[in-house]
Amino acid sequence: MAVSQRVIKSMENSSWIRKMFETGGILKAKYGDDNVFDFSIGNPNVEPPEDFIIKLSEYASLKKTGMHAYMPNAGYLDVREKIASWVTSTEGIEIHSDNIVMTCGAAGAMNVVLKTILNPGDNIIVSAPYFAEYEAYIGNHGGEVNRVQGGEKFNLSVENIEKAINEKTQGVIINSPNNPSGRVYSEDTIKNLASMLERKSRERGRAIYLLSDEPYKKIVYDGIKVPSVIKNYSHSIIMTSYSKDLSIPGERIGWLAVNPAAEDLHNLLGGIIMCNRILGYVNAPAIMQKVVADLQGRSVDMGFYKTKRDRLCEILGNAGYEFIKPEGTFYLFPKAPGGDDLKAVNALQEERILTVPGRGFGTPGYFRIAYCVSDRVIERSAEGFEKAFRALKNS
Amino acid sequence: MAVSQRVIKSMENSSWIRKMFETGGILKAKYGDDNVFDFSIGNPNVEPPEDFIIKLSEYASLKKTGMHAYMPNAGYLDVREKIASWVTSTEGIEIHSDNIVMTCGAAGAMNVVLKTILNPGDNIIVSAPYFAEYEAYIGNHGGEVNRVQGGEKFNLSVENIEKAINEKTQGVIINSPNNPSGRVYSEDTIKNLASMLERKSRERGRAIYLLSDEPYKKIVYDGIKVPSVIKNYSHSIIMTSYSKDLSIPGERIGWLAVNPAAEDLHNLLGGIIMCNRILGYVNAPAIMQKVVADLQGRSVDMGFYKTKRDRLCEILGNAGYEFIKPEGTFYLFPKAPGGDDLKAVNALQEERILTVPGRGFGTPGYFRIAYCVSDRVIERSAEGFEKAFRALKNS
Repeated sequence: MAVSQRVIKSMENSSWIRKMFETGGILKAKYGDDNVFDFSIGNPNVEPPEDFIIKLSEYASLKKTGMHAYMPNAGYLDVREKIASWVTSTEGIEIHSDNIVMTCGAAGAMNVVLKTILNPGDNIIVSAPYFAEYEAYIGNHGGEVNRVQGGEKFNLSVENIEKAINEKTQGVIINSPNNPSGRVYSEDTIKNLASMLERKSRERGRAIYLLSDEPYKKIVYDGIKVPSVIKNYSHSIIMTSYSKDLSIPGERIGWLAVNPAAEDLHNLLGGIIMCNRILGYVNAPAIMQKVVADLQGRSVDMGFYKTKRDRLCEILGNAGYEFIKPEGTFYLFPKAPGGDDLKAVNALQEERILTVPGRGFGTPGYFRIAYCVSDRVIERSAEGFEKAFRALKNS
Repeated sequence: MAVSQRVIKSMENSSWIRKMFETGGILKAKYGDDNVFDFSIGNPNVEPPEDFIIKLSEYASLKKTGMHAYMPNAGYLDVREKIASWVTSTEGIEIHSDNIVMTCGAAGAMNVVLKTILNPGDNIIVSAPYFAEYEAYIGNHGGEVNRVQGGEKFNLSVENIEKAINEKTQGVIINSPNNPSGRVYSEDTIKNLASMLERKSRERGRAIYLLSDEPYKKIVYDGIKVPSVIKNYSHSIIMTSYSKDLSIPGERIGWLAVNPAAEDLHNLLGGIIMCNRILGYVNAPAIMQKVVADLQGRSVDMGFYKTKRDRLCEILGNAGYEFIKPEGTFYLFPKAPGGDDLKAVNALQEERILTVPGRGFGTPGYFRIAYCVSDRVIERSAEGFEKAFRALKNS
């Protein structure tokens, strides 16, 4: 075996997901694409807003010297200035362009931050349910995953997080609106978390960084407001991408912002910028930096996703599923009827419905439905959801 | 100190480069941009070819469903098919689209490959002079840098590489045309290296991968032909980017190709694709994949760089510097007059000429000049090169 043992193990561990995708492929080949209802991945089905196409076309045809050349590893200064103004005006905390780094999406941001803060054997706390890739990202840089259970109804349990903190804890990852649960953590929750982390950081004499992954911040419903994390905790780093709100996940563009009061700020920023370079990203894609800088505050029409959410909630409710109505994202995370998420995912597959078992998100007994799909897929899946529910309840 | 000790150490180690850049900044502020001759980085000064702007504009304005959505982590199938045809026709070996992975430049490619093959404590051989970032890339994934000295006139020493191979050696990185020396390794050298590596792989019963970093392959002069690496060695992976030949380094687009006869091929490709995802690249930027796929074989006019090379060789030769005329790339790697590269770089800085000491490339006693600059910068630097030479010789 010439390939790394760690990589082989990672591939084996994720092979049940791959198996599901492969099964999806087989089902599509057998029944036709139209007769397989793929709720497995968060690939937005809404097209980017018209503004995006206009801006992209403008920059594409611009023959300005150095338009596609290297720029500072942190990104173009004018772009970072625009982002800093946006963050300052929306988060209620003054952020300077020096504290912004343009990244290859939120995934790129999370990797550079983790590499910057992790010593071998350090751990990062994640609260279930959490985005499965965090485990891989932490492992990439020699860290340990310190899993805690969330509170009731997919809220954060500040108590559980406090109990899990030890000498080797370098950070806590949170993600609100949450993938997979659709939960938005309340301002009280964020403030409680912040005050606990401030206290623990003080007690041990070294900061615990709060890494807030916010790619769904603009995808919320019913007028809900996502409270600011960066304003509420000094040692915080927020990160986001335009993948979901502009429907451009293939373009890999995002940014991170570091709270100016964060401990060890100079090394933290210097390290992040260096890691952006040495992890091989070098810089976020040049043209997309320019495009998104001009589109602060724009996003796809959330009415599309709201309609889908409401209709799917109706279908699932009628069928008998237990779930919490998502406040944001385009994910639903119902209880697996009968309690076994793998069984539930398999029963749904029998109905040509593709979903992801909750154990992939640290939460067995649930399953994830990504409803960023066409209305037709939702309508045509209704019967299958109902049949699978009955089959699972009677098994 | 809240930030990782490894990262702090990396920042300290590279701080002499940063110091030089900072000095450059101070010089520019003092004397004006026009009076500082910056030969420090490989940021192509030639603009992308017209074809690139045309194709980019076409794809930018295209309103096709899913143009900016996620695609398979390996990249678009149609793009990989076009690259595979190009590789097949130019390298003299049949390569299928399955063996191509689109990456965030050659730096992204090198990182995903290293993560895929490295177990903790494994080593990778690099032959001096080598691109400084390889050390960081190897370290990112828990590997050790196994340095060997090159042969005469910056050629590869297959003998030195053979001597350095041990049980923990997972691969050898080569880079031809070479940054910083401008050397192109001959077909005989590649064949000798390949047959030695085949023999050593056989002897120990596990392949040694050959990682060939080829971003300068199209930047060659005087009709020189860069021999194929992938055709000549079964366990080889070639990787490249469009940064230099299309002058678009800010866009982060490249690819890698795996020899179909490579050991452990299934795991190797599966691992590379998974690592492209979990290292946070996810996929190469979508629109740039489409653009470069249509531009195979295109590049900026090499006449520009040849003129610069020839004029700079004349200036350096007249001043008394010893150097080897580059066969490719846009770098020159002269001997430091007096023998000390740091002293030489400092003496050149006195003349407002910015270069990089050879110790950054594993080769003290030399310094690198990146001549991807305007003709004016070259002309105006002539006097400074001459003065610095005299100062160094007389010191």
